[in-house]
Amino acid sequence: MATNAQDAIVLLGDSITQDGWSPNGFAQRLANAYVRKLDVINRGMSGYNTDWIIPVFEQCFAKQHEQQHLPKVRLLTIWLGANDAALPPSGQHVPLARYGTNLAKLVHLVASPDSPYYAPHTRLLLLTPPPINTHQWRVTIREDDPTRELDRKFEVTAQYAEHVRAVGREVGVPVVDVWTRIWDAAGHVEEQLSEYSYDGLHLNDRGYALVYEEIIKAVSENYPELHYEKLQPVFKLWDHINPQNPGPDLQKRSIFPA
Amino acid sequence: MATNAQDAIVLLGDSITQDGWSPNGFAQRLANAYVRKLDVINRGMSGYNTDWIIPVFEQCFAKQHEQQHLPKVRLLTIWLGANDAALPPSGQHVPLARYGTNLAKLVHLVASPDSPYYAPHTRLLLLTPPPINTHQWRVTIREDDPTRELDRKFEVTAQYAEHVRAVGREVGVPVVDVWTRIWDAAGHVEEQLSEYSYDGLHLNDRGYALVYEEIIKAVSENYPELHYEKLQPVFKLWDHINPQNPGPDLQKRSIFPA
Repeated sequence: MATNAQDAIVLLGDSITQDGWSPNGFAQRLANAYVRKLDVINRGMSGYNTDWIIPVFEQCFAKQHEQQHLPKVRLLTIWLGANDAALPPSGQHVPLARYGTNLAKLVHLVASPDSPYYAPHTRLLLLTPPPINTHQWRVTIREDDPTRELDRKFEVTAQYAEHVRAVGREVGVPVVDVWTRIWDAAGHVEEQLSEYSYDGLHLNDRGYALVYEEIIKAVSENYPELHYEKLQPVFKLWDHINPQNPGPDLQKRSIFPA
Repeated sequence: MATNAQDAIVLLGDSITQDGWSPNGFAQRLANAYVRKLDVINRGMSGYNTDWIIPVFEQCFAKQHEQQHLPKVRLLTIWLGANDAALPPSGQHVPLARYGTNLAKLVHLVASPDSPYYAPHTRLLLLTPPPINTHQWRVTIREDDPTRELDRKFEVTAQYAEHVRAVGREVGVPVVDVWTRIWDAAGHVEEQLSEYSYDGLHLNDRGYALVYEEIIKAVSENYPELHYEKLQPVFKLWDHINPQNPGPDLQKRSIFPA
């Protein structure tokens, strides 16, 4: 037994995606907005970088010949970099150039006709990592170990965010610029990033509210047919069901209105 | 392209299930607790009764020969009755006896070896509808139409809840008794149900907190192997990955520890 009634939005990423299921997180907000239209599937893996996410992707997504049996992924968000940007000697560190190559590879896995995972119906969004508040993050990591060295820098994460923008232009995928949106909201003052993060690295409600807004804006601008207001529920609203003869009104429909 | 990495918890029901994606709703809480272990799929259809949910079920769940291609449903919650208990002449009304037959039919569709949808790996929970606060519900429905007749009664919904308990005993499926838990919490005073509902019929954060607690309690007692603390993430925690040779640590695993 399994479910194949609704297609899906898949969120691929690190802890900032995994935590998206928190109340008012971006996964919860998307699930609420798309209920009865698209399922939201969270493939956020805390601590993972782009090197490690590629084999995860290959085990999570169906190859072309398997796709007919499974729900389609209508929208895929790729949101990594917060760990790639960790400083050496951290095992999470991925050098900037390879980070870019990895992001491009993830896009090609979905978008290239010669990829075994090619899925022409899947729309892609690349997200930039949020800016890091090193003042707040230092306090967080020293709670357990007061001698621990700071493992991330504001300027380094900023470079990784810039690299996402470059890769997006190169491969032709829209970029949801979380970094800039939150940096602007904080008035370009690192300490004020604490408005949008509970520990300097991860987002709080207010941070996720901005991310959700930016994702919906990117969908409206690039994939307007996928905006939740443009879709109809798979099963009709109850007050459109004829209680005398409900059968015909209870047939599964496409979410795309005719 | 599609996802088949994680098995699922499926929530079948009416608006009280559909609204489970709200912040602190029971779907959001389950998704957060089971992240990286089981996906949560919401099949709540606002306004639907058990008559209408049966054809929905048949279009949402795979038949035996299709199951091999799809994620398994490890846990299925069936939570209906709030609309079946609407009073005639409402088109949502389902007489008490047929409501019981319908619930038993839903259980048999999953649990009977002769059902095309038979799924021996799917664990079931039946939930009772919450008690209705007619004082609060009258105010809600008269906001639009001050002459509208009250379409639900406290005692009638109580009978439907009692019927779920009886069906559960009859078919051998554990019952999550939402009705009793919330009625007890309200001190057996109908007006005090407003602590747990925003409109007299649907639940608020505090109501969903009790529902989530009761579901986890029922899982612990009846299906302890499915408690989220007993499961391991499909993909290892990042600090168990060897950065020098990550490949072997990035293989998909069963959520059930060896």
